[in-house]
Amino acid sequence: MQNPQLKLFHNPQSRSAGVRILLEELGLAAEFELVDFKAPEKSPALLAANPLGKVPTLIADGVVVTEQVAIYQFLAELKPEAGLSPAVGEPLRGSYLRALAFYGSSFEPAMIDKALKRDAGQRGMSPYGDVAAVEQWLRSQLSVGPWFLGERFTAVDCLWGTALGWMTQFGLLEATAEISAYLQRFAARPAVQRARALDQALLAGQ
Amino acid sequence: MQNPQLKLFHNPQSRSAGVRILLEELGLAAEFELVDFKAPEKSPALLAANPLGKVPTLIADGVVVTEQVAIYQFLAELKPEAGLSPAVGEPLRGSYLRALAFYGSSFEPAMIDKALKRDAGQRGMSPYGDVAAVEQWLRSQLSVGPWFLGERFTAVDCLWGTALGWMTQFGLLEATAEISAYLQRFAARPAVQRARALDQALLAGQ
Repeated sequence: MQNPQLKLFHNPQSRSAGVRILLEELGLAAEFELVDFKAPEKSPALLAANPLGKVPTLIADGVVVTEQVAIYQFLAELKPEAGLSPAVGEPLRGSYLRALAFYGSSFEPAMIDKALKRDAGQRGMSPYGDVAAVEQWLRSQLSVGPWFLGERFTAVDCLWGTALGWMTQFGLLEATAEISAYLQRFAARPAVQRARALDQALLAGQ
Repeated sequence: MQNPQLKLFHNPQSRSAGVRILLEELGLAAEFELVDFKAPEKSPALLAANPLGKVPTLIADGVVVTEQVAIYQFLAELKPEAGLSPAVGEPLRGSYLRALAFYGSSFEPAMIDKALKRDAGQRGMSPYGDVAAVEQWLRSQLSVGPWFLGERFTAVDCLWGTALGWMTQFGLLEATAEISAYLQRFAARPAVQRARALDQALLAGQ
């Protein structure tokens, strides 16, 4: 699979916003199908690809890739020369995989439980354990900087930079000094600004 | 990082059981530190590596890798010749990343909500949306077989084969025909049997 044809089921006000940013960072072209959350029925094309009807959903040369964490990784690997995906054997590889998986398996579940004022559940079952410890880890991770993994900007930042943006905006997470500074650095990137302008135009034309 | 020294914080009755199976499948040696869940205090060595105090936690040449999904991927990549990690560019790559991420970001959250009799939360926030759709997707995925991604056994099977085992055992998930047949095939693998025997011995000697 070299330079696959990419199609992204997308909505700028969803988890796919960061995937568009990653595509801009990578300079990869894709077809975007806007998924209208207000429509009474889900798009049949989306449901055919992903019965869960979620965005982002990516189709790459006919192969369906769902789950944002998988999509970030998959796309960043398509263009190794961009350096956004630390290669197997690089010292940063383990931290990269950890930061991606941690977001989907621990951080989002913790933030959702917090937003819904639910307990974490019993210790052995909960994937994250304790909201305060999760937030503490995040702050310590971002206090190094400038990027999530340190000096090097990676696909991890497209995920976290986007997610921390909407979480602080909606009050799910306190915009501490570390988090605010990180979000400012992220927002200043030309590719982030291009992707957001394209999404604004997409919403305006809806 | 070639042939890194591996240390796994482990408990046979936890999410790390499948990681031990993967190590057996790969023929990789590791040091195991048994984490006793009944101890009044968490292991200082574990907390130093992972402030969340979770297992599995892996240390590879001093680099900490947490999150089971990241650990499976990281280990399988260390030994590409074993074929348990479809390489970048292979047609199976996207499905492989999807099956790993789906487990951590959607399937476990869905099963935990179901076990705790909680709602999925509002549509845009929930990572999975609907428990019935998630279970339906799993059954259709397993109905092809013999392995999660079809003909080829991968690290994905070490994760799902282990998780579906404890979920059906604890009644979180119905052991349908597809799931039971998959678990039987998994349990019959020599490496799975070796890993489980080693874990039994570890528990017996505790």
